[in-house]
Amino acid sequence: MTRRPDELGGSVVPGRWAVVELLRTGRRRVRSVSLARERGPVVDEVAALASAAGVPTRRRDPDQLRDEAGVEAAQGVVAHADPLTPVTLAALLTAPAAFLVALDGVTDPQNLGAVLRSASAAGATGVVLPRRRAALLTPAAMKAAAGAAEHVPIALVGGVAGALEQAARAGVWTIGRDTRADATVYDLGVADRPLLLALGAESAGLARLVRRRCDVIARVPMPGPTESLNVAAAATVACFEVARQRGTTVQHAPG
Amino acid sequence: MTRRPDELGGSVVPGRWAVVELLRTGRRRVRSVSLARERGPVVDEVAALASAAGVPTRRRDPDQLRDEAGVEAAQGVVAHADPLTPVTLAALLTAPAAFLVALDGVTDPQNLGAVLRSASAAGATGVVLPRRRAALLTPAAMKAAAGAAEHVPIALVGGVAGALEQAARAGVWTIGRDTRADATVYDLGVADRPLLLALGAESAGLARLVRRRCDVIARVPMPGPTESLNVAAAATVACFEVARQRGTTVQHAPG
Repeated sequence: MTRRPDELGGSVVPGRWAVVELLRTGRRRVRSVSLARERGPVVDEVAALASAAGVPTRRRDPDQLRDEAGVEAAQGVVAHADPLTPVTLAALLTAPAAFLVALDGVTDPQNLGAVLRSASAAGATGVVLPRRRAALLTPAAMKAAAGAAEHVPIALVGGVAGALEQAARAGVWTIGRDTRADATVYDLGVADRPLLLALGAESAGLARLVRRRCDVIARVPMPGPTESLNVAAAATVACFEVARQRGTTVQHAPG
Repeated sequence: MTRRPDELGGSVVPGRWAVVELLRTGRRRVRSVSLARERGPVVDEVAALASAAGVPTRRRDPDQLRDEAGVEAAQGVVAHADPLTPVTLAALLTAPAAFLVALDGVTDPQNLGAVLRSASAAGATGVVLPRRRAALLTPAAMKAAAGAAEHVPIALVGGVAGALEQAARAGVWTIGRDTRADATVYDLGVADRPLLLALGAESAGLARLVRRRCDVIARVPMPGPTESLNVAAAATVACFEVARQRGTTVQHAPG
């Protein structure tokens, strides 16, 4: 199958942390950085990093910057880079100590970005996204990811159900999050194995086929009166619970 | 001190979950509910709840609804209610099994809303916010809180440092989150006591005085290459870690 090189997106990078990580990691070509005309610590920090990396900068008025950024609060900095390159699911599945997060039907770019950020901080080794019907790396997602998109490899798949089947064949344990499960994320005891966490959209949850293909279904116990979690919050709890259970024995390669 | 009755805000309630919880809990007067003229499952669900609660509804065009809501994605529903009423810090501190979250300098309303939602789901018994220099319950915060503002009591204080002092006098254990701490949130072992978690803004962290007044400073370990967490994500990890440590021995009263 031929892939469009820009199918993952991520070429417009707004916001301080997103731009700083883009310039620091240097994993893809940065074409230019637009900076607010009005100077300040963030703008100056980014200007210095861009200059050190040999990336051309240009000054912009607030309106121009907002148009370029595609989000309201770009903190005065927007970078333009080559799009992110997806990796293959096979590559993610065969990584040692694989710790993957698959999102099924998450359509809000901010949620996607927030999941990337939390997953990457918790040490996830990859994220799996369906190619269609889901938020890809729009400017809002890049802003919310705050640089995590430079670190965590992303695979695009035809569907999450198929990805789970492939994971099973690769010996990767699959865990689906569902609010109605009996098991909880605290008693999985599988964190030392290669694993994939599947999370569905907030209201719909996991699709039936995805749910059925998971080795385990687990919930995040919610002792309080609020009975639903934002998908990014659920992903954060689940990812950090895996990180807690893995303890210090698994260390991610320095990014 | 005289308080403005609206100092906490929360009278404009946009979005499905926020409106549904507002109508279901019935803890404050709902003046009216505005609904998108174009019907759909969410709009119909809210219309039925409003009718059952005797709350007048009115149909609105998309532009009117957006103006009323103050946020982009109100999902076709906006309620107008009496403002939320803050509680006193003393009341929060003396609650049995107090589990409080104090935010210092969190200025993004979406982050505030997300913290309320996660804290409430994790069983927090109250949230402490500084009266000035912080986001209060704007429409964007109410939308992100997704109904949690109807459940979790909120106290407004002059400053978080002063609140910590008052907490110490009330025998409430105070834990500050800081990325540079030696201890981690996993080895606190204080979850069975009345406690207060203090979280600072993303870039600045806890103010020095706040940090000094905490009984313990702890970090959320981040094994991955992304070295910072969104404040709502950090609050989510910390709150659910308290919930995990408390296990099933502490149950929140049904809301």
